[in-house]
Order: sequence, then structure tokens, then C-alpha cells
Amino acid sequence: MSKNKTIITAEPGKQELFITREFDAPRELVYRAHTDPEIFAQWLGPQDLSVDFEVFEPVSGGRWRFLNVDQDGNKYAFHGTFHEVTPERIIQTFEFDGLPETGHVSLETLTLEELPNGRTKLITHAVYQTVADRDGMIQSGMESGVNDGYNKLDELLETM
Amino acid sequence: MSKNKTIITAEPGKQELFITREFDAPRELVYRAHTDPEIFAQWLGPQDLSVDFEVFEPVSGGRWRFLNVDQDGNKYAFHGTFHEVTPERIIQTFEFDGLPETGHVSLETLTLEELPNGRTKLITHAVYQTVADRDGMIQSGMESGVNDGYNKLDELLETM
Repeated sequence: MSKNKTIITAEPGKQELFITREFDAPRELVYRAHTDPEIFAQWLGPQDLSVDFEVFEPVSGGRWRFLNVDQDGNKYAFHGTFHEVTPERIIQTFEFDGLPETGHVSLETLTLEELPNGRTKLITHAVYQTVADRDGMIQSGMESGVNDGYNKLDELLETM
Repeated sequence: MSKNKTIITAEPGKQELFITREFDAPRELVYRAHTDPEIFAQWLGPQDLSVDFEVFEPVSGGRWRFLNVDQDGNKYAFHGTFHEVTPERIIQTFEFDGLPETGHVSLETLTLEELPNGRTKLITHAVYQTVADRDGMIQSGMESGVNDGYNKLDELLETM
């Protein structure tokens, strides 16, 4: 387990949440781990699920789509657009394709802050169309998926 | 003035707002008026400002950017991405480029509902990163710009 803790903040009744995590690596590496699809696919999402990027255009105005595939071959698709991609900030839309109806979309802002000693703080701010959408995302097991991913990213950053 | 009223709902302390407006035209025309750049440019935004689309890709995953130009030649730029574009719904990001800092982005969901007698109800739901961002948008004169635009659209729909 990493000594860097993931903190998820979701105030009751609000349609937003925050995810804060520090990394023992400089910002340019954390940024690269979010924009190089070969690196991104190695750590994104829950343990034991593979990541297959079908579309990945990490530039302002680009779009993305990936599949999470579990060991039984079940596929979970996600897609969105990149509103802005810079080394300091990524702003994107996010939709899980497996819901009963389409159109439940969130807006995510990832801010990459430089810390002393070559470390980085990543703050993800997600806003949802409704409080229910946000609460559903939390109840879907988001926290363990995020934790799994960041722990894999810690290991990967040591090798980069 | 149109007999169709624009209703803007912004509950205090929330980071969202709703704009509801009916049109005396079928959904396919209202949809076309939002996705055909030549038609869109004729009605979008405040009275007396022209619209110049620099980028307009009204498909899911596309992007857009336009300039509002006033009679003195002052330019106001806006840009975003299209997360989803279908005849029933448009989901997009939205940013005004004229703020002191970039990165203040909203997520807009436009729902086009068919009403009896060939009429259409358009519901725009916008969520903001903060309550302050939403309140700032309202205070910027959004309401008159929206009203101007929809009144121009009423006239245009009669000719389509």
C-alpha cells in the first residue's frame, strides 16, 4: 500500500466531489501518465481489469473512449471529450456507457500542482448533472477503483 | 415580442440552472437551428452582435468555437466540445474566453421535447464548477442574451 492516501470529499446534497492524491514524482511524469495511452492503460481503473483505448486524443478539443475488460471478458465502456489538456490541467467530460439510459455525463477538472521535492498533488473535481448521479457514482465502487489505479500508478512512476 | 416566454430557474446556492423555452415549430427544425452553422449564426446570442463560427463540428465528440462581434468590432470568444449530439439531446462543454483566468467551464445539456401541434420544448440544463461561476454567468447579462437569441430564432423558424 502507498503511504500517499487518496481523499474523496463529497458533501451531502451537493452535485460535486473532490478526489485529492499526492504522488512522489514530478508533475511532468504524472501528466505523462495521464496522456500517454500506453502508460495510462497500465494503471487506470480497478485491479485485475485491463484497459483498451479505442480512441484517445489528449489535446484540447479531442475525445476518448476506453473499455475495461475483466477476467471473464465482460466489457465496461467509458467515453468523453477533452475540453482542455495542458500540463497543469485536464478538463474533460465523462460518461459510463453501462447505465440503463445514456446522457448521464459529468465534467471533470484535474489540476496538477507542483509540490516541493519533486512531488505532485493531483486534485480531481467532478460535477454531475444531479446529486443522484454523483451518489450513484460513489456507490458504484468508485473509491476502490480510484485507489487501485493510484496504487498502480505509484509503482509505475518509480520506474519512469 | 414572442408569446413564448423564456424561464430561467437558478435555485440559490446550487451550481446549476435551467432555461426552458417553447417554440412554435417541430423538433427537427429547432434541432437544425442548433446544428446548421449558417442558421445558428443568424440567431445565437444578443441583439446587434454578429456570430462567426471558427470551428463547428456538431457531432458527438466534436468541438466548436465562435466569436461574438459587436458594432465597435470588439470580439468575445466562446468554445467547447460536443459530448453528444442527437436530434433529442445535445450535451456540450461551454467556456467564455474573456474571463481573467481560463478553465471556468460548464456542462450544458439541451433536451428537445416534442409537444403536440408541431411545437417543441427546449430545456437547457447547465452545471457549473462552482456556485460563484453560475452566479457570475447570470450576472453577466445571460438572460437578455438568451431572450434576444430565442426571439430571433422565433422569427427564423417561421421562414424555415
